[in-house]
Amino acid sequence: MYVIFSPMNRTYIKDLKAAVGQEASISGWVDIRRDQGKMIFFEFRDVTGKIQGVVLPNNKEALEICKEVRPEWVLTVTGMVNKRPEKNIQKDKQNGDIELEVKKVEILSKAQELPFELSAEVNIDTYLDHLPFTLRSPKAKAIFKVQAVIVKSFRNFYTGKGFTEFQAPKLIGDDAEGGANSFDVTYFKHIAHLAQSPQLYKQIMVGVFERVFTIGNVYRAEKHSTTRHLNEYTSMDIEMGFIKDHGDIMNMENEMLAYIFEALKKECAAEFVLLKATIPEVPAKIPRVSLREAQKLITAETGKDCTKEPDLEPEHERWLCDYAAKNLGSDFIFITGFPTAKRPFYTYRDEKDPTYTKGADLLFRGVEITTLAQRIHNYDDLVASMKEKKLDPEKFRYYLQAFKYGLPPHGGFGLGLERLTAKLLGIDNVKEAALFPRDINRIDNLLSK
Amino acid sequence: MYVIFSPMNRTYIKDLKAAVGQEASISGWVDIRRDQGKMIFFEFRDVTGKIQGVVLPNNKEALEICKEVRPEWVLTVTGMVNKRPEKNIQKDKQNGDIELEVKKVEILSKAQELPFELSAEVNIDTYLDHLPFTLRSPKAKAIFKVQAVIVKSFRNFYTGKGFTEFQAPKLIGDDAEGGANSFDVTYFKHIAHLAQSPQLYKQIMVGVFERVFTIGNVYRAEKHSTTRHLNEYTSMDIEMGFIKDHGDIMNMENEMLAYIFEALKKECAAEFVLLKATIPEVPAKIPRVSLREAQKLITAETGKDCTKEPDLEPEHERWLCDYAAKNLGSDFIFITGFPTAKRPFYTYRDEKDPTYTKGADLLFRGVEITTLAQRIHNYDDLVASMKEKKLDPEKFRYYLQAFKYGLPPHGGFGLGLERLTAKLLGIDNVKEAALFPRDINRIDNLLSK
Repeated sequence: MYVIFSPMNRTYIKDLKAAVGQEASISGWVDIRRDQGKMIFFEFRDVTGKIQGVVLPNNKEALEICKEVRPEWVLTVTGMVNKRPEKNIQKDKQNGDIELEVKKVEILSKAQELPFELSAEVNIDTYLDHLPFTLRSPKAKAIFKVQAVIVKSFRNFYTGKGFTEFQAPKLIGDDAEGGANSFDVTYFKHIAHLAQSPQLYKQIMVGVFERVFTIGNVYRAEKHSTTRHLNEYTSMDIEMGFIKDHGDIMNMENEMLAYIFEALKKECAAEFVLLKATIPEVPAKIPRVSLREAQKLITAETGKDCTKEPDLEPEHERWLCDYAAKNLGSDFIFITGFPTAKRPFYTYRDEKDPTYTKGADLLFRGVEITTLAQRIHNYDDLVASMKEKKLDPEKFRYYLQAFKYGLPPHGGFGLGLERLTAKLLGIDNVKEAALFPRDINRIDNLLSK
Repeated sequence: MYVIFSPMNRTYIKDLKAAVGQEASISGWVDIRRDQGKMIFFEFRDVTGKIQGVVLPNNKEALEICKEVRPEWVLTVTGMVNKRPEKNIQKDKQNGDIELEVKKVEILSKAQELPFELSAEVNIDTYLDHLPFTLRSPKAKAIFKVQAVIVKSFRNFYTGKGFTEFQAPKLIGDDAEGGANSFDVTYFKHIAHLAQSPQLYKQIMVGVFERVFTIGNVYRAEKHSTTRHLNEYTSMDIEMGFIKDHGDIMNMENEMLAYIFEALKKECAAEFVLLKATIPEVPAKIPRVSLREAQKLITAETGKDCTKEPDLEPEHERWLCDYAAKNLGSDFIFITGFPTAKRPFYTYRDEKDPTYTKGADLLFRGVEITTLAQRIHNYDDLVASMKEKKLDPEKFRYYLQAFKYGLPPHGGFGLGLERLTAKLLGIDNVKEAALFPRDINRIDNLLSK
């Protein structure tokens, strides 16, 4: 019953093998061009891969056109798909045993001289200055293919678990959010802010759909440009009601990670090879260690007492990840039981000792990738917690309605997409795991000083 | 290999039928409470539905607890699932033939007195003032369930067609975007803007993945609060390379709409019944009429000559939709061939007459829901078009790199999620189809004057 869609009589490069001995038309970019005078060799590229093309001396018309053609020109090429002679076969290379004998060339789009070769290793600023070009490199494509599969699998997993997706607003009133880390927006005669997370909205939505997820941009007005910071990033968030405690949230994240990495194994094997990265195994139960236990381990190892610190230092996170990899056979480790003093007002407190919270950080390959927790669901407790943290409940009156009118025990987590992508792929600078990264010095172009 | 997830020993209300004659535990909200002195009747609600509960006179302990219980309290209730006596059966109602004989009640969360009943018809301002509460109404839940299925199906459709999802930035430099319709953001020592669309980025991404889609918030600083305007809304965007012309984009949208509505038939039948809305049939080929033909039809009917107007008036859109429904058997109609003067600089011009563009508006139930077009892919043509529209190409130098380095013929469209949802469900005010709508007077709370 659906309309048949066929935009062009086009064969994808990955499918050329099936056309050996026949004519086929491909459309794509010139990746490489080698003019040998009497003959011209090409590598053509489309979204599915690459193929060698050759223009033979007897094809005057095509030779004439191809003398002018340069890398990144966009062509439709019709030719014979031939097997290569045995001696020219390149094993382990896509289409290494066939080539396209060019018959006819149609130019769809020309390109100017390139600033550098697409395969060139360039420094990060040059890379970012030229994203509309550099994103076409095999490495960048592999990174963002993997990222797309992460996002898709995340959604599929939670949809399968009965979670409902919702669209969280990013434009926030001059009330709950704010502070030094918030960007101001001129909103008609008012000042609004860009959301630092969908936290308050996903809690409200627990009252509507019980289990929800949302994926979208969030904003942090951090004034430093480092390899770890982005001022705009993508947060993948869940929140679920009717939990027993934060253990349910840990289980829900544990299982999701296993699901995503299974999907990556199936859909992105080639990308991981290209990026020389390995997909981690996710244990059936990721090890869980309390902050205080973790600090005892660190103190015993380093001789420096950190058992009274309220949080982990970056070197502690790295040490614990090494420890988990070596001793617990896991690339992941949950650290539970952070002090209340260092956690946001909405974090649920441990009944046994309310100076500690019911939540965890998930560490992966040296860094924290998630903060998760049970949340306070009782209205009076929540208001008391706000006051204790010197926050004005009146400013949160919209959000507080959700609690005033009955919200079940609930919890959730947020996971930064770009940081996860970077850690998974062994990318040192998170800016390479964000398509169009914004930092204090750059929005696409460098900002004037 | 995955962790087994079982948050509680909980039966969903929709599954109670299978437990007739057995004990079961449900968790959810008190929807209705009727105290008859010796007995108390309830309607309990969870995300899957409703069930009648009854506390019998002999259950002193439960009666004692339930005397205090009020609507929106969150409970875990354990009870016997009984068949109702024949005379009490309510046909056509979920669980109309069973009830839960309450044995034990555990209070998870209390609620304060409600501002009004959840089922009450309230005016739009009252509705918006209380969203954390009013979103729990059956009507609101149905709307946002449908919206979640639209989004999911949109993605599934394009993923299946080889499109790659990407995350578009919303924070835009002080260059290409701007103007009266743009919100200003204080970005450290600079002024940035909130994106009005992902247009330029999705075109860049055609150079990377050929076919891409992105779903995210976009912003319009429109100074009026009407039933049609939102200052923050969700745009579902695609862009695809190697097209013949805008006809390919029309096909791609046509097929997608059919796919989404099939999914809605399967997954949201109950919601459409509740909302008294009908899912339209999508023709295999949605009628396509040029602007000038359309204007001739209107002129012939109304006697008022509009054949030289550069665009359609709102009443013309309504008239054309009526016409298509009556004469062409379609709730949809594509209007093609708008004049270049009224279209953005990147719109491809008709080779036969460059004062017209190769694109279309899609009208549905009286309004335009999509603008689609082929885009200019040639660098020199694009720069010339900018100059003609009095735009400074230097400000677009980042985006222009995509064209400098070879971009195929391409096109795409954007579809406003909230407007589509509203039109589909017969909702008069688009603010009811946006979860947390922002307008000139309101970000959650009303803004002070």
